[in-house]
Amino acid sequence: MSELREAGPAAADLAAGHLSSVAAGPVWRPVADADRSWLTGQPLPAAGRPLAELLEDVRERVLPYPMGNGHPRFFGWVNSPPSPAGVLVAPLAAALNPSCAGGEHAGVLLERTAVRWLAELVGFPHRPGAGLLTSGASMATVIALATARQRALRAQGHDVRETGLYGHGPLALYLSAEGHSCLRKAAELLGLGTRHLRTVPVDAAFRMDTGALRRLIAADLAAGVRPFLVAASAGTVNTGAVDPLAEIAGIAAEHGLWFHVDGAYGALGVLGEGAGPRYAGLERADSLALDPHKWLGVPVDAGCVLFRDPAGPRDAFSLVPPYLRDDAADALGWFSEYGPEQTRPFRALRVWATLSHLGREGVTRLVRHTSRLARTLAGMVEDAGDFELLAPAVTSVVAFRHLPAGRAPGAADALNEAIPAAVQRRGRAFLTGTRLSGTAALRACVLHPETTEADLGVLLDEIRAAAREFGA
Amino acid sequence: MSELREAGPAAADLAAGHLSSVAAGPVWRPVADADRSWLTGQPLPAAGRPLAELLEDVRERVLPYPMGNGHPRFFGWVNSPPSPAGVLVAPLAAALNPSCAGGEHAGVLLERTAVRWLAELVGFPHRPGAGLLTSGASMATVIALATARQRALRAQGHDVRETGLYGHGPLALYLSAEGHSCLRKAAELLGLGTRHLRTVPVDAAFRMDTGALRRLIAADLAAGVRPFLVAASAGTVNTGAVDPLAEIAGIAAEHGLWFHVDGAYGALGVLGEGAGPRYAGLERADSLALDPHKWLGVPVDAGCVLFRDPAGPRDAFSLVPPYLRDDAADALGWFSEYGPEQTRPFRALRVWATLSHLGREGVTRLVRHTSRLARTLAGMVEDAGDFELLAPAVTSVVAFRHLPAGRAPGAADALNEAIPAAVQRRGRAFLTGTRLSGTAALRACVLHPETTEADLGVLLDEIRAAAREFGA
Ligand SMILES: Cc1ncc(COP(=O)(O)O)c(C=O)c1O
Ligand SMILES: Cc1ncc(COP(=O)(O)O)c(C=O)c1O
Repeated sequence: MSELREAGPAAADLAAGHLSSVAAGPVWRPVADADRSWLTGQPLPAAGRPLAELLEDVRERVLPYPMGNGHPRFFGWVNSPPSPAGVLVAPLAAALNPSCAGGEHAGVLLERTAVRWLAELVGFPHRPGAGLLTSGASMATVIALATARQRALRAQGHDVRETGLYGHGPLALYLSAEGHSCLRKAAELLGLGTRHLRTVPVDAAFRMDTGALRRLIAADLAAGVRPFLVAASAGTVNTGAVDPLAEIAGIAAEHGLWFHVDGAYGALGVLGEGAGPRYAGLERADSLALDPHKWLGVPVDAGCVLFRDPAGPRDAFSLVPPYLRDDAADALGWFSEYGPEQTRPFRALRVWATLSHLGREGVTRLVRHTSRLARTLAGMVEDAGDFELLAPAVTSVVAFRHLPAGRAPGAADALNEAIPAAVQRRGRAFLTGTRLSGTAALRACVLHPETTEADLGVLLDEIRAAAREFGA
Repeated sequence: MSELREAGPAAADLAAGHLSSVAAGPVWRPVADADRSWLTGQPLPAAGRPLAELLEDVRERVLPYPMGNGHPRFFGWVNSPPSPAGVLVAPLAAALNPSCAGGEHAGVLLERTAVRWLAELVGFPHRPGAGLLTSGASMATVIALATARQRALRAQGHDVRETGLYGHGPLALYLSAEGHSCLRKAAELLGLGTRHLRTVPVDAAFRMDTGALRRLIAADLAAGVRPFLVAASAGTVNTGAVDPLAEIAGIAAEHGLWFHVDGAYGALGVLGEGAGPRYAGLERADSLALDPHKWLGVPVDAGCVLFRDPAGPRDAFSLVPPYLRDDAADALGWFSEYGPEQTRPFRALRVWATLSHLGREGVTRLVRHTSRLARTLAGMVEDAGDFELLAPAVTSVVAFRHLPAGRAPGAADALNEAIPAAVQRRGRAFLTGTRLSGTAALRACVLHPETTEADLGVLLDEIRAAAREFGA
C-alpha cells in the first residue's frame, strides 16, 4: 500500500496533465508500429513490476493514443470528454471497490440518488426503485425490452422466464428507420427475431412517421401478430432528431403497447433553450434509456434505464421469490434483482460527482452551449456554397455533406464516404460519417464544453482539405 | 482542468489512505441515519460545487461505509480487495475515456493483450479475437449462451437472430445443483425458459454427477427435446468445488453439446499447488467465463469470456454483414461485434496493470496463499469440537457450520442462518451463509493477500460470540 501512496498522486497528476494538454496535440493519430506491437503483443510477465514503472508505460505507450474524444475538435459518434469530477473520483470508487448488487453500503445507497437525479433532470416521474445504472444504453435497452416482454406474456397468463419463447405467438416491435441498432441487438438477444421488428419510415426531419406506425400496427393485427412495443428516439444518433413522443405515446396507449424511449444521447436535450415542447410525451414512457456517459460526460461506463413502474424489471429479473421479498430490510431489494448483472461496479460515484460538480445549472449550460454550436455549424453549412445541410440541427448533431464546386454530383457519395477517415488522419479534427435516406453524410456531434466557434471553422476547412486530397 | 490538477492528487491520496487504514477499522458497519439520509436523499443541486468539496463529502459520508471487501477479515460472497495497480490506473482510464467498442486506439489494442494473458494464465487455448472483457461473469455467461444458441440453431439451418425462438423446438441445458444462478438468469433472458434447464445432482463433494447428467440427456432425447449445452463449474460459489471437467467435456463431445465452463471465481485456482489435474478438461471448453474482479482483485467491473472459436460470438452479435467484414483494416473487427455492449469502458487498463504488477508469480502466490489459508481454516474447523466441515476446501472457499455443545441438533439450522448477519453487525469479521443439500451453512471465501492465520482464529471466535448472542 505504501507503493500506492507514492504512485497514486503521480497517476492522478498524469491524468489531469493529460486532460489539460490534450487540446494542444492532434485529435487522433495512428498507432506507431512499435507501440502497436507493445500494446497487443507483450508477453505475460513472469515476475511483477513496480507501480511507478507501469505509470511510465501508460505515459509513453497508452496516453499518446486516445480515441480522440477528450479533444475539443472531436465531433465523432456520440463520445464526450470525461467530466473532471468523474476522473477525480475514479480512484476512490476503485479503492472502495464495492459490488453494487445490493446490501447496505454507500455504493448502493448513492445509486438511489444518482438514478433519482437523472430522472429529475429530464423530467421523468420517479418512484424509488424504478431505475438503475447500467454499462450503457445497450444494456439499458436489453433490460427495458426484457421487462416489456415479461409484461406482454404475463398479460396472456404466461411467465416467459419459465416457459421460454418457444410456444408463443410472435411479438412485434416498432422502431423508426433512424432508431439505434442497439434495439435490434436487444431484440435478437431476447429471441424476438428481427423478422418481427418493423422499421417505421421517417418524415423529412427524420422523425418517426406516426401514420406509417399506425398502418404497420394494423397490418400486424390483421395478420395475427401481436404488437407489443414501440421504441421512440429522443435524439437519434444520425441527426439528433426527436420523434413525436406524445403522439407515439398515444398510439402505444391505444394499443396497449410498451412505450420505450431511447434517450441515450438526447434525453438531456430537454434542457435546451425552448426545447421542452419537443420532448412532450417523454414523461409517458414505460421505460427510458439515457446515458450519463454521453452528453453529461460521466466517464465510460455509465448508462441508465428508468421505469414508470419498479415492479416491472423486478418481475423480469429477480430470483428472489415474491413471498420473501418484503422480509428484506429494504423493501426495494437488491439492484441485481432488476437486471442481468450480479456484481455491479460503483458507477454511481462518478454520476453523483459529475452532477454535484455541475449542478442543474452547469448541465443546462453544457447542453445549451453545445446545442448552440450545433445550430451555428448548421448555419455555417447553409451559408457556405460547398456544403449542404441534410437535417435540421435540433439537439447537438449536425448532418451535412460536402459538395465542392466543379465536382460531378454523382461523385458526392464516394467523396463523402471517404472524407471522415481522411479528416481523422489529418489529426486536426475528427468526425464520422453515416448514411441518411441512402445518401452518404457527414455528421458532427458537439459534446465538449470547450469547443468554440473557431473549432467549427477548422472542421469545415479540414473537410475541404481532405476533399482536396481526393482531387476535389 | 486546473481544479482537477489540484484536487486529483488529493483524491488519489485519499484512496490510498483509505486502503492502508481499512484493516484498522471495522469490516463493516451499519449506515448512520444522518448519513443514510444524505446518501439517498440529497436534492439535485441547482448550482455546482467545487471538486475539493466533493472530496470532503466522499471522505465523510462515503468512505466510512464500504461493503467490507477491502478488509483482511472479509470472507463474504466472492468479493476481493482491489489491487493497488487497479486503483492506480483508474483515473487514467477515466481521463482517456475511450469507448472500447472498436477502432484504432490504445484501449482496444490493450484489451487484446489483457484477454490473451487471462487465457494463458488459466491454460486456455487462445486465438486472436476469441474473447472480450465484460462487466462480470453474468454478462460473460449471456454472451456464451447466446453464442451457443446461435450455433445450435445454425446446425438446424436457422438464424435465430432473424427468426426468433418462436417456431423452434426447445433446447435443453444442463447445470449442476451447485451451478451459479447467473446461468439461470442468462437462460431466462435468452428466452430459453427455466422449464428446459435441467438441474444435475451433485456428488458428496458437490461436483456434478456425470452419471446423472447422462441420464438427463437420455431422457430429453427420448422426449424429443434437444440437448444443446452443458455448463460445468470450475469453482462453485458455495464450496469452491470443481466439476469433473474432462468427463463432462467427453459427454458434451459425444452429444454435440456446447461445453461452457463457469470459472468466474475458480478458474485461477488452476495455479494452486498441485491443482492442475483437477482442472484437466477446462482447455476443452467452447466458452469459459472468468472474472478478473474476483480472485485476481481487479477493481470491479472486470469480467471476461473466452471462446474456442472467435467466429462464434461474432456470428451471434455482429451487425456488420459478413461480406463487409474482411474489408476492415483489422480483420478481427470491433469488440462490439462480439457482444451486446456498444460503448465499452477501458477495463483492459486495470486488468493489464494488475497482471503487470503481480506477474504470473504474484498471481500464483496470491492463489496459493489464499488456498492454503482455506485449507488451514478447514483444518481448524475439523479440529474444533463445535464446528463441522461441510465440504472439502479445494479452492479458497470453506463451507462449514457451527454446532455449539449443549444445543439441540434440530436448532442448528436456525442458528447458522442467524449467524452471518450477527457476525457482520459485530464488525470484526464478515462472512455470509448459504444452503448446502438443504442444510444452513456458513461459508468463508479467502481472497485477500493480507489475510493471516490469526484472522481465521478471529473469524471462528466471532462466530462463537455471535452464537452466544442467541443463547448458544
Ligand atoms: C441514440 C443512441 N441510442 C443508443 C446508443 C447505444 O448506447 P451505448 O453505446 O451506451 O450502449 C447510442 C450510442 O451511440 C445512441 O447514440
Ligand atoms: C461461480 C460464480 N459464477 C458466476 C458468478 C457471477 O459473476 P458476476 O457477479 O461477475 O456477474 C459468480 C459471482 O459470485 C460466481 O461466484
